Amino acid sequence: MESATKIFKDFQDYLNADHDLREEIRSVVRDLEQTAREIQIILQAIHQPSNASNATSLCDQATAHFSKVREHYSSLATKIPEGQYYRFSDHWKFGTQRLVYLSALIVYLKEERLASREETAETLGVKTKREEGFHIDLDDYLMGILNLTSELSRLAMNAVTAGDYSKPLKISRFIGELDSGFRLLNLKNDHLRKRFDGLKYDVKRCEEVVYDLTIRGLVNTEPQQKGE
Amino acid sequence: MESATKIFKDFQDYLNADHDLREEIRSVVRDLEQTAREIQIILQAIHQPSNASNATSLCDQATAHFSKVREHYSSLATKIPEGQYYRFSDHWKFGTQRLVYLSALIVYLKEERLASREETAETLGVKTKREEGFHIDLDDYLMGILNLTSELSRLAMNAVTAGDYSKPLKISRFIGELDSGFRLLNLKNDHLRKRFDGLKYDVKRCEEVVYDLTIRGLVNTEPQQKGE
Amino acid sequence: MESATKIFKDFQDYLNADHDLREEIRSVVRDLEQTAREIQIILQAIHQPSNASNATSLCDQATAHFSKVREHYSSLATKIPEGQYYRFSDHWKFGTQRLVYLSALIVYLKEERLASREETAETLGVKTKREEGFHIDLDDYLMGILNLTSELSRLAMNAVTAGDYSKPLKISRFIGELDSGFRLLNLKNDHLRKRFDGLKYDVKRCEEVVYDLTIRGLVNTEPQQKGE
Amino acid sequence: MESATKIFKDFQDYLNADHDLREEIRSVVRDLEQTAREIQIILQAIHQPSNASNATSLCDQATAHFSKVREHYSSLATKIPEGQYYRFSDHWKFGTQRLVYLSALIVYLKEERLASREETAETLGVKTKREEGFHIDLDDYLMGILNLTSELSRLAMNAVTAGDYSKPLKISRFIGELDSGFRLLNLKNDHLRKRFDGLKYDVKRCEEVVYDLTIRGLVNTEPQQKGE
Repeated sequence: MESATKIFKDFQDYLNADHDLREEIRSVVRDLEQTAREIQIILQAIHQPSNASNATSLCDQATAHFSKVREHYSSLATKIPEGQYYRFSDHWKFGTQRLVYLSALIVYLKEERLASREETAETLGVKTKREEGFHIDLDDYLMGILNLTSELSRLAMNAVTAGDYSKPLKISRFIGELDSGFRLLNLKNDHLRKRFDGLKYDVKRCEEVVYDLTIRGLVNTEPQQKGE
Repeated sequence: MESATKIFKDFQDYLNADHDLREEIRSVVRDLEQTAREIQIILQAIHQPSNASNATSLCDQATAHFSKVREHYSSLATKIPEGQYYRFSDHWKFGTQRLVYLSALIVYLKEERLASREETAETLGVKTKREEGFHIDLDDYLMGILNLTSELSRLAMNAVTAGDYSKPLKISRFIGELDSGFRLLNLKNDHLRKRFDGLKYDVKRCEEVVYDLTIRGLVNTEPQQKGE
Repeated sequence: MESATKIFKDFQDYLNADHDLREEIRSVVRDLEQTAREIQIILQAIHQPSNASNATSLCDQATAHFSKVREHYSSLATKIPEGQYYRFSDHWKFGTQRLVYLSALIVYLKEERLASREETAETLGVKTKREEGFHIDLDDYLMGILNLTSELSRLAMNAVTAGDYSKPLKISRFIGELDSGFRLLNLKNDHLRKRFDGLKYDVKRCEEVVYDLTIRGLVNTEPQQKGE
Repeated sequence: MESATKIFKDFQDYLNADHDLREEIRSVVRDLEQTAREIQIILQAIHQPSNASNATSLCDQATAHFSKVREHYSSLATKIPEGQYYRFSDHWKFGTQRLVYLSALIVYLKEERLASREETAETLGVKTKREEGFHIDLDDYLMGILNLTSELSRLAMNAVTAGDYSKPLKISRFIGELDSGFRLLNLKNDHLRKRFDGLKYDVKRCEEVVYDLTIRGLVNTEPQQKGE
């Protein structure tokens, strides 16, 4: 009968080591989320009319913080034993989605285009592909992009307040493009699909802003679009 | 065996005294909440267009009722045995959150700024710090401030109805500032975090009002903001 | 507007310090619960028929571990700021209830009587009364005693298996006494009341064992009881 | 703008491949669970009094089916891309727990001892350790063992029906040993902890059977135990 006791003693050590590892992961993730909050606070300023012409400077400030992000991910990657990324990924899922969104927001603000998964991974300091180790899961990348559309639809409205009538048009077309992109995907009936269902409100919101501008003759949408 | 009976007899006295104390606390808290309701009713009038120019007078009426609030808290403080604030604080938590909100609303209406935790404590007649005795817990202060943003976003809309086009702009900037403030905080995944998640709807609501004013040329947001 | 940001910066420091304190408390409580598990494992052996005559030795082994318990509580007590016992007590509530039960089990096994709240506090190395600082809350003491009755009703049955026919009678009378004691108390409709509702099954279980013994003529219950 | 569409086209391929893989995994797991059910049906016969002396033959029949189990796991293992065990493990978690339980039941029936995690892994045809690839997760092993105790407590009762009075004593001691083992572990507040809370009912059930046997003089527990 002694054997049963011995077997369980081994499990005890095992579970305690496991518990310690989880604590360490939690601690790094906490730092990661703190840095994400700092970046978020900087970029929130784009919604204030007074910062309308100031977006590049805000992006530069935010970009500077990403060196800390890369350090945190690097520290996290060394802690995860090989092959156990998905055993622990719930810990950093949320933080990663937020950092994808923030990093893609900077890319849009500077270059008015969608940040690819590869360059986002580079900005965060993680691998591009699952096979290479610590990476951004596709689900988390897509969730971050859905958060981006929400933020941009808000920006479209606030751009009008700041007197910028061309930005809403560009944003509306960009979000429309993303909406088409997501419709290509065969999303399972999960959290991503639910979040995607909210995208239509972002699309609608942007279209309303463009409508408001057009009906008042504040922009002339037609020739611009044809020219593209 | 007699000992067990004797031990339980002592507990009986103890639990009965405890029960009586809870009844007394409940009774004072009931009075406190009644006074809060009276203040609330007075301040609700700010949403009526006819009272738009009347806010100062409403604030004065509401302020007068705070002497009763201070009496109730003073009575409550004497009832709580030393070191047992957190044993009973669930009883007055909700009432305190509401009074923080009402008191901060008055400060905003009169001075367009955030009431600090210290001056709110003074208005309620309680201590500023936990160490000093009966105080406002930080959680309750923050919850009260989140209730304030909700009320102000409503006021932004009603101000337009009353023909006041500058108030929504001020409120929108104030709520934006509070939003940034809350983003600094590492809120645990609790009731405060959930309530904070609702703040974005208040922000959005205000931005929509400002948007509506701007697109109709009813306000010119740009120069004002740049001048600040 | 700067003031709002400053106010929130202060809160950030405050909440971070609070978070660190909670982490420290959690860590000590984890050690405390680990020690409780070790004591529990030792005392579980009383149910094995082979240990029937061995209870004193098991009690001595278990008692030795209580010096670690006292160290943990002492460490915990220094961490809790004055007046904030009830702010954090949910962290150690469960561990304390278990230690009350284990400590009271030892007292019963050795002296067949109910351990008072005072001596239990002494064994755990905490204060007797709430006013004196870190103590055992009455609720937690009572919950621990209810766990004791459950354990003893199990022991009554296993004593028969071990050939000890007098122990079930003593346990049955002791649990009956505790049942009377609890009935004296005006328990609110809470977790303690629910747990107390389970006591009747312990009483019934013991009575059934005594019945089984009596009806088979294995004990003579009457004169013994009169003689006491 | 084309880039966004192109980016999403790639995701489409990726998600479709992912979807196909999940279908394949589901199909193998379905076969695995079917085999588990067949083994289960064979072993259920041990509860019938007529099979009391027949356990070895039932075990041999059941053991024969494990070659199919090993084939299914081998097929499953080749499908899981490196490092993605935990990405998909929810699919086979339940089936694995059941097979652990069935395999450990055979070991107990034949040798009255706890099957180690290593030999269970061998019987199932998977790796012993997480680092080596497709393995039994500790959680799933432990869950399987908890299912075993439940089955054995039932067998203790049915053994009496079949006129075997020594088996309940052995089972009761074995389950008591497992109970002590589990108490060593610092289980998080999760599904395993909840399942462990049910173990006490298995312990109790066995003790009641032993009690019933003892009080009727059908077994003499004392000398046997002392002799060990």
